[in-house]
Amino acid sequence: MSCQDAIGVFDSGLGGLSAVKEFLHVLPNEKIIYFGDTGRVPYGNRSRETISKYAFQDASFLLKHNVKTIVAACGTVSSVAGDMLEERLPVPYTGVVNPTAFIADRKTKNGKIGIIGTAATISSHSYKLRLEKLNPKYKVYEQACPLFVPLVENGFICRDDQIVRLVIRRYLSELKETGVDTLILGCTHYPLLRDAIADFMGDGVTLVDSGYETAIYCAKILRENKLLNTSGEHYTPEFYVSDTPDGFKSVAGLFLGRDMEHTVTQIDIEQY
Amino acid sequence: MSCQDAIGVFDSGLGGLSAVKEFLHVLPNEKIIYFGDTGRVPYGNRSRETISKYAFQDASFLLKHNVKTIVAACGTVSSVAGDMLEERLPVPYTGVVNPTAFIADRKTKNGKIGIIGTAATISSHSYKLRLEKLNPKYKVYEQACPLFVPLVENGFICRDDQIVRLVIRRYLSELKETGVDTLILGCTHYPLLRDAIADFMGDGVTLVDSGYETAIYCAKILRENKLLNTSGEHYTPEFYVSDTPDGFKSVAGLFLGRDMEHTVTQIDIEQY
Repeated sequence: MSCQDAIGVFDSGLGGLSAVKEFLHVLPNEKIIYFGDTGRVPYGNRSRETISKYAFQDASFLLKHNVKTIVAACGTVSSVAGDMLEERLPVPYTGVVNPTAFIADRKTKNGKIGIIGTAATISSHSYKLRLEKLNPKYKVYEQACPLFVPLVENGFICRDDQIVRLVIRRYLSELKETGVDTLILGCTHYPLLRDAIADFMGDGVTLVDSGYETAIYCAKILRENKLLNTSGEHYTPEFYVSDTPDGFKSVAGLFLGRDMEHTVTQIDIEQY
Repeated sequence: MSCQDAIGVFDSGLGGLSAVKEFLHVLPNEKIIYFGDTGRVPYGNRSRETISKYAFQDASFLLKHNVKTIVAACGTVSSVAGDMLEERLPVPYTGVVNPTAFIADRKTKNGKIGIIGTAATISSHSYKLRLEKLNPKYKVYEQACPLFVPLVENGFICRDDQIVRLVIRRYLSELKETGVDTLILGCTHYPLLRDAIADFMGDGVTLVDSGYETAIYCAKILRENKLLNTSGEHYTPEFYVSDTPDGFKSVAGLFLGRDMEHTVTQIDIEQY
């Protein structure tokens, strides 16, 4: 493992590219190798056993590329399989739960924190357990929002779309009533609904997005392990997917916030 | 292959159980072996290549049970991989497209027929091509409704639910304007939205559901091949899934329309 090796990032699909966007800002001299399991997305309604199996295959694929660290840019994987990955991977591992809980802990003033995520993320109580470890006095409110990922994946993201607004209201009304002042967007798809969620929750609620905080945390891990790339080079990200790359460019542009030079290759993830 | 062998039915997930419900009515003396690919559901937004690969694995699993016929109770698989399955399987194959198109052909009076389905189903033009073969004068209108499956899978099925009604209006408004008198529900999940779709389309439009017609067609194929089970026995259906069977019973009850005796077993579909 050398400092010029890549950072391996994976997600159940393309939502994790919203985290890659932040990695490219925070760590501009690192090479990113991304795997999105588009052939088996979404993970959020699957069992713990299946999510763990898929996550280990995803990480095993990245390890073949001699990555120096592995990041699960996926709330579901981080919540359900994070401990297993940390224990079994031969390189430093980062999920999105710890960095995001850490920043929510710094942002909250009234100690009432909301978490939204997939069904698997919420039933794991990963964020809640982490936050209560940071401060046992916190009141943590959890809400699964299983329709948010399909909404985003099918282009329902506009803050003015009546369907988007109604689904958000259905899922978040009770959470809003609790008086949380901080809301963790516990899934890497959710930043695309950020404006609409902010409109509903109102000005008094800080939204915490996992991508940026995870990039900061990953930079810290690399620094501590003397693995930061100091060569000053710029690299083209390499993207890998498990379904065909048709339409990848436009969807990737949506999550990355821009068109960029990249390569994209289909692989057979079931072999890993 | 003997007449006492089972009928193998598969779907991307549990939507195909809405067809099994009809098979149990139409063919009460047949044993049903069902595989639902719950570890990789949904198929409807995936590429032709990936859908074909998954469908062949699903059918290969059923063949291990010495089934006398295989039914793809899935609009996506039937549309995208039907020809491949018909060619490669060593037992008679039935998809949902041909039986459903056949009945739509009998129902329409004004020759204007609508099709709704997943993105993969609609972009294959499977129903449209079949209908135009039956009658080149038909006007066929197609509409992908990619949010319908997630709606159903997350319990948004009530005809009075404002979200359900709005999503239906968003997808079906243009189709309604065309004046179709027949609408094919081209996905085995859609019968659960039947009431809400009927409310929107109005009394003048006949909805055609694939499950019942496919069961009738399958009975015909078995009769022609002298494979109908005439023993008079009743069998307990066997269900197999690729994710854990947690929560299977309640979801299965929803699609089957009742609780019933059954066995359910998890298998590793990637091995097939």
